[in-house]
Amino acid sequence: MTEQHNTISVDSSEVAFAVNYPPSDIDELSESYGDSKSLIHRRVEVPEEVVEPGQLNILSAKYESLDYDICENHLLLDEERKKGRKFITRKNLERWFIFLLIGVCTALIACVIDISIEQLSEIKYASLSKCVDKYIIVGKLYIPYFLYVLYNIVPVFIGATLVAFVEPIAAGSGIPQVKCYLNGVKVPQVVRIKTLLVKSIGVVLSVVGGLAGGKEGPMIHSGAVVAAGISQGKSTTFKIDFKVFKHFREDHEKRDFVSGGAAAGVSAAFGAPVGGVLFSLEEGTSFWNQSLTWRTFFASVISTFTLNVVLSTYHGVPGNLNYPGLLNLGQFEHFSYQIYELPIFILMGTVGGLLGALWNFLNFKLSVWRIRYIRNKWLRVIEACLIAALTATVGFLMMFLINDCKPLGQDPTKYPTQMYCGDGEYNVLASIWFQTPEASVRSLFHDPPNTHNAVSLLVFVIGYYLLSCTTFGLACSIGLFIPSLLTGAAWGRLIAVGLLKLFPDATALVHPGKYALVGAAAQLGGVVRMTISLTVIIMETTGNISFALPLILTLIAAKWTGDFFNEGIYDTHIQLSGIPILPWEPPPFVHNIYASEVMSHPVVTLKTVDNVGHIVELLRVTTYNGFPVVDPPHEEHGNAVYGRLRGLILRSQLIVILQRRLFTETCEDWEQITASIFRDQYPRYPTIDQVCITEEEKTFSIDLRPFMNPSPYSVLHSMSLSRMFRLFRALGLRHLPIVNDTNEVIGMVTRKDLARYRVWRHQGRVGVEELLISKEL
Amino acid sequence: MTEQHNTISVDSSEVAFAVNYPPSDIDELSESYGDSKSLIHRRVEVPEEVVEPGQLNILSAKYESLDYDICENHLLLDEERKKGRKFITRKNLERWFIFLLIGVCTALIACVIDISIEQLSEIKYASLSKCVDKYIIVGKLYIPYFLYVLYNIVPVFIGATLVAFVEPIAAGSGIPQVKCYLNGVKVPQVVRIKTLLVKSIGVVLSVVGGLAGGKEGPMIHSGAVVAAGISQGKSTTFKIDFKVFKHFREDHEKRDFVSGGAAAGVSAAFGAPVGGVLFSLEEGTSFWNQSLTWRTFFASVISTFTLNVVLSTYHGVPGNLNYPGLLNLGQFEHFSYQIYELPIFILMGTVGGLLGALWNFLNFKLSVWRIRYIRNKWLRVIEACLIAALTATVGFLMMFLINDCKPLGQDPTKYPTQMYCGDGEYNVLASIWFQTPEASVRSLFHDPPNTHNAVSLLVFVIGYYLLSCTTFGLACSIGLFIPSLLTGAAWGRLIAVGLLKLFPDATALVHPGKYALVGAAAQLGGVVRMTISLTVIIMETTGNISFALPLILTLIAAKWTGDFFNEGIYDTHIQLSGIPILPWEPPPFVHNIYASEVMSHPVVTLKTVDNVGHIVELLRVTTYNGFPVVDPPHEEHGNAVYGRLRGLILRSQLIVILQRRLFTETCEDWEQITASIFRDQYPRYPTIDQVCITEEEKTFSIDLRPFMNPSPYSVLHSMSLSRMFRLFRALGLRHLPIVNDTNEVIGMVTRKDLARYRVWRHQGRVGVEELLISKEL
Repeated sequence: MTEQHNTISVDSSEVAFAVNYPPSDIDELSESYGDSKSLIHRRVEVPEEVVEPGQLNILSAKYESLDYDICENHLLLDEERKKGRKFITRKNLERWFIFLLIGVCTALIACVIDISIEQLSEIKYASLSKCVDKYIIVGKLYIPYFLYVLYNIVPVFIGATLVAFVEPIAAGSGIPQVKCYLNGVKVPQVVRIKTLLVKSIGVVLSVVGGLAGGKEGPMIHSGAVVAAGISQGKSTTFKIDFKVFKHFREDHEKRDFVSGGAAAGVSAAFGAPVGGVLFSLEEGTSFWNQSLTWRTFFASVISTFTLNVVLSTYHGVPGNLNYPGLLNLGQFEHFSYQIYELPIFILMGTVGGLLGALWNFLNFKLSVWRIRYIRNKWLRVIEACLIAALTATVGFLMMFLINDCKPLGQDPTKYPTQMYCGDGEYNVLASIWFQTPEASVRSLFHDPPNTHNAVSLLVFVIGYYLLSCTTFGLACSIGLFIPSLLTGAAWGRLIAVGLLKLFPDATALVHPGKYALVGAAAQLGGVVRMTISLTVIIMETTGNISFALPLILTLIAAKWTGDFFNEGIYDTHIQLSGIPILPWEPPPFVHNIYASEVMSHPVVTLKTVDNVGHIVELLRVTTYNGFPVVDPPHEEHGNAVYGRLRGLILRSQLIVILQRRLFTETCEDWEQITASIFRDQYPRYPTIDQVCITEEEKTFSIDLRPFMNPSPYSVLHSMSLSRMFRLFRALGLRHLPIVNDTNEVIGMVTRKDLARYRVWRHQGRVGVEELLISKEL
Repeated sequence: MTEQHNTISVDSSEVAFAVNYPPSDIDELSESYGDSKSLIHRRVEVPEEVVEPGQLNILSAKYESLDYDICENHLLLDEERKKGRKFITRKNLERWFIFLLIGVCTALIACVIDISIEQLSEIKYASLSKCVDKYIIVGKLYIPYFLYVLYNIVPVFIGATLVAFVEPIAAGSGIPQVKCYLNGVKVPQVVRIKTLLVKSIGVVLSVVGGLAGGKEGPMIHSGAVVAAGISQGKSTTFKIDFKVFKHFREDHEKRDFVSGGAAAGVSAAFGAPVGGVLFSLEEGTSFWNQSLTWRTFFASVISTFTLNVVLSTYHGVPGNLNYPGLLNLGQFEHFSYQIYELPIFILMGTVGGLLGALWNFLNFKLSVWRIRYIRNKWLRVIEACLIAALTATVGFLMMFLINDCKPLGQDPTKYPTQMYCGDGEYNVLASIWFQTPEASVRSLFHDPPNTHNAVSLLVFVIGYYLLSCTTFGLACSIGLFIPSLLTGAAWGRLIAVGLLKLFPDATALVHPGKYALVGAAAQLGGVVRMTISLTVIIMETTGNISFALPLILTLIAAKWTGDFFNEGIYDTHIQLSGIPILPWEPPPFVHNIYASEVMSHPVVTLKTVDNVGHIVELLRVTTYNGFPVVDPPHEEHGNAVYGRLRGLILRSQLIVILQRRLFTETCEDWEQITASIFRDQYPRYPTIDQVCITEEEKTFSIDLRPFMNPSPYSVLHSMSLSRMFRLFRALGLRHLPIVNDTNEVIGMVTRKDLARYRVWRHQGRVGVEELLISKEL
């Protein structure tokens, strides 16, 4: 099902500006004042065959918008009038309570994931470490190697099977999907309980399986699902209805809760409540809503607090509260910087931007290859297992080939591996590999200077960089924050080693941990290109506010450098899926593209009182989700006249009306019909084929006026694209009827019609390109 | 001048719903579906005489909206087409550069203010301290007392004279005014250089004068003015035009820069860059703009960094960077809390809410009294001097009457005063009074336990609470953050003293400084009722992220308790001034108030090509700022028909057109006319009387089409108030034309028409009240 939009069939030759409504006076005037449409970069070449998967310039027709705009129909007014003031107060209190629950539940799930990973990893790496030191004496190193491979493959196999066969959307970090949902796109399955289960189990198995990834991204996704689940008070998967929170069963409320859940997820993952709020705002908010933000912050704080209490108790220090987040980077209080270090940080940011852009490019190429050739589910599982084996091989080769030994005592892991080192020493690379990636990041930040030598670091950077790049996009629930941080921390430390070689006297200042932190920020910034939320998350994770300036300069440098070449990795993956996400601002140079050129037309309308048979037929033959309701059109001067806009009705509403048989002729107890009849069915309405309408009933009629949205936002055909965009984005619309001078509906604009015009940046130049819309993707 | 709105003359008897457009079909239907208008609390009683000043239910007609909506006329399109892509890139770089300048300049001003206050205060309190100890021996304590009074009165006199006679808007903290500006209200004079000068000098004099206030609020205002000044590249006050940044000379850009400046101000004041960004967002943003937020954050970070460098250098520790903000509360790292302390914090929050609500109530009553009786400028100056003397008297009485002595050594001030204490001891209250309030807050947070005894604290709390309440609202540039923090810190410490009496074993846990911090947060939260930004500001100022949960719980408790009784102090003052600020969300129960009931009509329109004489006449006789441009109306069926909406033109644009004589008949070089002709005059356009139009010219005509906004957002008369509100707020509109079914303009809605419907909360009940609009206020 699609909203009413302009599906351009891919073999058509009319791609750009296929719809050209006759220009009005104003259009003509605009022509005389000059045409800047030449600034738009049109892709006129049309693919001959089916759409090749892996293109970035195609929007998929399968994604819908959320109904964020509240339908103020008469049923709603009626309800409001009856329930009065107390109802509003109660609803508000319930909202706070739900946000409390979201915070607590998200944190508990995070704790379960964290503790499982820790326990299982400990068993795995302890036995591996022992095994290495046992068989190295007898020269049978292939035994620990095969054990390592086995330990990696088994969990990854289970995890990948779950993802590939049970819930494919649980693959990856989930951040792109959450981003899209917060942006207003209804990504199927993204906030369902099944997804949460697969994601949670999958992330434990993937991390235990030693893949180059982390649990932070999946944590954010989990928070979003928790929020969607709790706020609805029912589960469609388990067919349970707790009969609570019924008034929140609509897209508007649900999206608000999900933004709180995502924030709570960030908060639990990084111990960053403010960063969580900013993440939600940056990704999701079009319209700033103070009370929502305040509640979101509450959920975030509750989430980090609950996690802290549980993890502190688990670690045997119940009063200490030293575990605010899953990613625990330790204390950075001793860090300080000098002004003349700032250029170095900016330079490191640039390096991070370059490396990040390259990473994104490689991952993009790999993803395209995957989309084209790894389509079979078993192939996806096998691929994941191969990468798991590869990870073990790379790790083993590194510790085998590079004999970087350090004396025991300050060893960063519980089970130091001796390998070929002398007695009382341990192998540095084995200690990096034989622990979870988070622990490795912590080691790189806090190990004393000289723990790692330059060669080990360099080899590790190259290996891990490529491994993490191949890992992201596998059929495993795993995120890329940690591998990016780890790679960045390693090359950051490498730079510190280099600086200390150049200026041997600067040991007091060049703390390798500080450079590791800047490197980590630069690498992560170069890959994900988040701005303020990432800065604040890193500030909060390290607990160091005074380090804000180095971080922000590094991240600005990384973002600008990276943006010069390509988009952030999340945006790349969103574009690959063809999801019609709307950016924050309208693209430039679209002031003189008018609604009449963008809209889809002719538009299918309903009359205020329409025939049941006609409605059923319309729902069957079209895939549209919203229909303008108009006064009956009449003939005038021999020309067909469009109907005058009276309202807007959704497919889901029509289905419910048909199902309940609210026909003018037969329905009698109008008093019983309240706004809740629509909420009862939310969010999964039957299709039109599941609703049985007899032939007799098809002769009846329906008065749509009590149900429809009586005053949808509509604009004139002469409205510019940029102004339409702002209206659409700021109010979270789904359908925007386009009317002519006499208020008659002549077209419809939906998300895809606007998302088609995309900013196009390449090597410092800016333009606009027009995307194709395809049903094939 | 006013926008087109519904000025209800106060002696009219038609206050509520004065305008009733004949209901359409939809309206009738709505009637049949029930009327919840009874939920609106209408004030039907109309004052008989002139409006009494000091009422909260009146909006002043004198405040205008900013033109935030971009006028996409043909000149703009033309400009864009000509300048192309490079222009957009250059504009973007310029924006970053301006934000850098804003950060640096705001910080430098903050440094100058801070250093001046510190130097002058040191001289003042050193000499006072010496004087006391000198004359106490000879029993002539009246001499230091008079000296104290003199030291207070002289600077306050100068400061108050400046404020009262030069720039009255520089009085107070400036936060309410900045809030309104960010909300989209054009508060006269608020971002002018003269205001900045008076404010900066005034705040130094007021703080040195010993008034119970701080420099943080004025700092935020200063940041806003700096931003407005720099971004325009010219000063009207000094008649200088630097010929730079010309493209930013419009309300939209200026407001964006001001939001960055306010954030930089917060950042400089509290060392809280993230808090600054959140302050700007909370107060100003309707539509979240990622790039603006990111730039704002950059300015904030630069601001705290610059301040840090300058102040560290000034204090002789250039490398240390320990002075991130003006308000330096020291390190709180040793604070930790137990879960069972949380209820105590919530209780303290409630106390803070109660005390804050009482403070607001007292200040409100006092402000009303001031508005009614202290109208003369000299009276205002005398009042300020009297309060300055009173402050000295209260302080002196306290240190004289309460002989709280502590041994020297851990004394918090440079010049400990002995008073009646024994040798080697100092008078605690003298040390609190003989320093700036900030230093006192720091003392209360960090002094070791037992520094203050319960009686001194109690007396100090009562005294300072009342003093700060009388001080806010004087004709002095001074803020209320510090006095609120000081009062709260004092009673927080008092609670710690009480707890230690109850549980003498808990000394390890009950650190008085921790309770002082919670008390300070509670008191400040109870007074200002800010939410997320205040939490983050306190978190950043104290540098303690782990203390987020106690703070947020305290602030929630304080806000909820306070909101039960009245509004935050800033909102109260905004309401007293009758400024039509728009809240974040539409009030409840306005789904069934329709545009036709809210709009002002009949509406004054212009034709697309109109006669010069007619335009001049219209501008002379009306005070409207925006005119719908319509097709010439014609007669139909004997009835006058309204004109069809074609565009919207502003008074300022008409003035420029007239001044430049862009008449169809005479103007020839149309090529020379660019969008910049409007920016050249910004922001102060001549009045219509300053434009000379000859009688001959009055017969000419003007084609408005190239200049007008060709597609203003407009809505149908049947649109509900809540939907109009969302549209207006989210897009930052100034004029919203209301059209009928055939797109003919029948009315106009402006900010005041929407701001008139205000949420009304009283003791847990919620409703809507309708305000009056008055030209008298």
